[in-house]
Amino acid sequence: MPSERHPLLSNRGESAEIAQQKAALRSSRIREIAFFAWGLLATAAFIVAAVWIQHDAQTDHGNHDKVAPKRNLVFMVSDGMGPASLSLTRSYRQYINDLPENDTLVLDQHFWGTSRTRSSNSLVTDSAAGATAFSCGLKSYNGAISILPDFEPCGSVMEAAKRVGYTTGLVVTTDITDATPATFVSHVLRREMQDSIALQEIGEGVLGRSVDLMLGGGRCHFLPNSTEGGCRADEVDVTRLAREKHGWGYTDDRHGFDALDGGNKVKLPFLGLFAERDVPFEIDRQKQNDVYPSLSEMATTALRALEKATKDTDKGFFLMIEGSRIDHAGHFNDPAAQVREVLEYDKTFKAVLDFIANSKTETVLVATSDHETGGLATAIQEPGHLPVYNWYPRALANAASSTEYLASKLRSYAASIGHFNNPKERRKSKASLKKWINEELVVPGLGISNASDEELEALADNAEASLEIFSAMISLRAHVGWSTHGHTAVDVNIYSSGGPGTQAIRGNVENTDVGKFLRHYLDVDDVVEDITKELREKTEKPGEGAMSMALEGGSVVGSYHAQEI
Amino acid sequence: MPSERHPLLSNRGESAEIAQQKAALRSSRIREIAFFAWGLLATAAFIVAAVWIQHDAQTDHGNHDKVAPKRNLVFMVSDGMGPASLSLTRSYRQYINDLPENDTLVLDQHFWGTSRTRSSNSLVTDSAAGATAFSCGLKSYNGAISILPDFEPCGSVMEAAKRVGYTTGLVVTTDITDATPATFVSHVLRREMQDSIALQEIGEGVLGRSVDLMLGGGRCHFLPNSTEGGCRADEVDVTRLAREKHGWGYTDDRHGFDALDGGNKVKLPFLGLFAERDVPFEIDRQKQNDVYPSLSEMATTALRALEKATKDTDKGFFLMIEGSRIDHAGHFNDPAAQVREVLEYDKTFKAVLDFIANSKTETVLVATSDHETGGLATAIQEPGHLPVYNWYPRALANAASSTEYLASKLRSYAASIGHFNNPKERRKSKASLKKWINEELVVPGLGISNASDEELEALADNAEASLEIFSAMISLRAHVGWSTHGHTAVDVNIYSSGGPGTQAIRGNVENTDVGKFLRHYLDVDDVVEDITKELREKTEKPGEGAMSMALEGGSVVGSYHAQEI
Repeated sequence: MPSERHPLLSNRGESAEIAQQKAALRSSRIREIAFFAWGLLATAAFIVAAVWIQHDAQTDHGNHDKVAPKRNLVFMVSDGMGPASLSLTRSYRQYINDLPENDTLVLDQHFWGTSRTRSSNSLVTDSAAGATAFSCGLKSYNGAISILPDFEPCGSVMEAAKRVGYTTGLVVTTDITDATPATFVSHVLRREMQDSIALQEIGEGVLGRSVDLMLGGGRCHFLPNSTEGGCRADEVDVTRLAREKHGWGYTDDRHGFDALDGGNKVKLPFLGLFAERDVPFEIDRQKQNDVYPSLSEMATTALRALEKATKDTDKGFFLMIEGSRIDHAGHFNDPAAQVREVLEYDKTFKAVLDFIANSKTETVLVATSDHETGGLATAIQEPGHLPVYNWYPRALANAASSTEYLASKLRSYAASIGHFNNPKERRKSKASLKKWINEELVVPGLGISNASDEELEALADNAEASLEIFSAMISLRAHVGWSTHGHTAVDVNIYSSGGPGTQAIRGNVENTDVGKFLRHYLDVDDVVEDITKELREKTEKPGEGAMSMALEGGSVVGSYHAQEI
Repeated sequence: MPSERHPLLSNRGESAEIAQQKAALRSSRIREIAFFAWGLLATAAFIVAAVWIQHDAQTDHGNHDKVAPKRNLVFMVSDGMGPASLSLTRSYRQYINDLPENDTLVLDQHFWGTSRTRSSNSLVTDSAAGATAFSCGLKSYNGAISILPDFEPCGSVMEAAKRVGYTTGLVVTTDITDATPATFVSHVLRREMQDSIALQEIGEGVLGRSVDLMLGGGRCHFLPNSTEGGCRADEVDVTRLAREKHGWGYTDDRHGFDALDGGNKVKLPFLGLFAERDVPFEIDRQKQNDVYPSLSEMATTALRALEKATKDTDKGFFLMIEGSRIDHAGHFNDPAAQVREVLEYDKTFKAVLDFIANSKTETVLVATSDHETGGLATAIQEPGHLPVYNWYPRALANAASSTEYLASKLRSYAASIGHFNNPKERRKSKASLKKWINEELVVPGLGISNASDEELEALADNAEASLEIFSAMISLRAHVGWSTHGHTAVDVNIYSSGGPGTQAIRGNVENTDVGKFLRHYLDVDDVVEDITKELREKTEKPGEGAMSMALEGGSVVGSYHAQEI
């Protein structure tokens, strides 16, 4: 029976109806296949588009809640670098390298936004309150090291990162116990309490150890009072405590730094303290490269060490790098020192970008300043003159030493010739002292060959205050102005490599938004809160006296500490 | 015959094969419909995603080559406003309105990037070279009004916009012939050539008229030398020429401004010159609101007038609005005047955003500065004191007059009592003069109740130079510093509403990139080139003497012209 024939065999003698049905079925099948293909293609196209949108959202709009890949975070702080420092350094670099007028710093190419900097008790922040905004994501009073206006501690992003398994590091060119690094791993009422900060940094605080690698200066805060090179008030040898109780590796010189082999031979935890106090300004350090490592050398060593240490871990690393002494050059009003500090910072920023380009782990770089220092202006009006619309990078290029270094030389020399002890001798030797100052300091050090008699006289009469005179001399030649030896309130720049979540700190933001980004990127918001609770439970609230002492001087001086280098 | 029956009628007695075929066909149809529906849905989803991506690309990434909708462009210039002016004004506003510490200006919420400002012949630009970077998109020498370093003219974005059918406008609070507005519609070797600028602005230049609406000050450059209120070197009545030859409507007072009914009753072209020179500083103008319109009033009037004029045109409008006197407050080092200027500029920026929100035509707002003025710093160190980490908005809130106004009052009073003509009388009346200065100017005007005897003595002795003394007095109380009465080289801020193409000026860019954005957004790049050619054909190249004169003073003084108000 035809009806029983297998459909595939009924190719002959079939009725017209069957043929028609078959034709209909065939064309239906073709349409079916076509529609299927269409559906498939359109779906594929939609998936591609959806993935694109999702990627775009992740890259541009900070939606990273769903994925939690292994991550590294590098946070750079240019202490005291305001907007004027950038045009100053950019034009200086164009001048010394004969570059075109549109040539820029690497930083300029990654400009991301600006940050408002006021603290909880002043329109003008100090570095402690500024760094607490980064470490805790909260405003506090000037002088506070990760302590809030209620005088209770706040958990820091680095403490939280360490707790969940990140490997952590701090790299600076000033004391490792100075305000910026201190806020990430310690809690004290005032920044001057560096003896306590040193102890907390190595792991003696209530949370134990939160940092795995520290490179920088400030060795004296780790050595007993009675030791040569020690500046602690007590007799604790913190380097020994670090090694013996907490297992730190330790070096205190360039030789030990070189032995780290660019980070390949670092066994964590590791502490490198390469100067008694500050690492010298870059302008001076370059002549002592066999004694002190540079910021970029320390940073690349740290990056390699942390990369190696996290090769097989679930969590990546969190590294804070500070160009600490841009601020000091601002405090000293020394533009020749500052441009070299900013150039070295720019070089370090580039080194981090290069690291990111070669890293297999997702890494975000965010860089900002805590505040501006000095009220730097790239033009001055000389008294009795009309304003001139220019400033002169060549005056900075001619300088070979910082004014800090020259003042130190002058003080030593004046002391050596008994200049301050014998008034009669002083008068007699004034002429020869002025000659010595000009020939040994002003001409070779500042690169100034037209010092006036008044300037040399002022230097000879005020060896103790000569730093300010040297700074005024070079600032005048460069036509660069300053309004204070302290800080100012201008917004500071934010730079970034971009990446997940960084849209939250584009545009003009509060400095605390930068701190919130750090903890959010590392996905430790909750952990920070837990640590805050733990700290408050384990720490005794200070008495009334200590609290009022903590606020005293809150708006005064801050990190402006003339040093006896 | 079964084969001849219509398929739709064969519902009975059909063979099992047919039934099977039909079943196959039916299920194929169902699949067909399902696949069709799938294809349709997936395609729709893809289209939605594609539109999303396209929209995203247009909004965020500046791809606007394919569409050419009707467009408006508002370009705002905050002459002389550097980064420190923002933190100054933001904190001032928080202080006077008792706002929280994270309260911001409207500008802050639209921060977009920063601009490098150097000119072709100096690291520190003046307003002429700065505005030429905007108008022509090219660097030139200080003093140049849309003239290049080869002393040949360059076509401006406004001239090109006008040529292709845009309606155009200029709104300022200084002379409408001053550097910034001048560069958009005129070409002269030096900015001081304001007689020529006035003529070119009304349509007497080789291109004819390029602007449809001008509101601001500087009436004296339009009136004959011999007329009261005229400051031209010649006897041309430019207002009359404008009306009679070029068809301009004209008003010179507040009454005439009010008759414009917020822009509803403006017949273009229209010229409104509301002050002989500058419109008074906002701090002073508020007390003469019946005499002078404010920047925000002029801007909203212009927006409405241009919107109305372009209601049925193919092209939209291009309006330049300048907060001109932020710069003057910087030149005068007067922080109390500056914060009111910046607040009024912020208010105007907000008014433009409101316009955009209600406009049916795509409108982009971009705002930036040409340079910083004064080397403003929000902190100072008093001689002999340690630096203090704060500054005091209340000192600015207490002031009720600009130092320009107070100095003018003092000069008039001193002249009226013959103070300068009679040395004997001068000595005798010094005490009463000091008393008058304190009671009539210092206390009510500066809001300073603790003027020292030295300060009052200096004012009494130097009525002609009193502006600087008044400014120093209030800056000291506010703890605000200045380094020059001229300009500085710091990068300035860029603000934007966002929109097509604005990604090109995010981050840190050259000031010429801002100019290139303007012409690109209006799609007149080629037309600018054509106009440059036309200008060069129709204009005679200046002689050697004129050329060297044009460069003279290129780096000196610029727009710092103390005025005889």
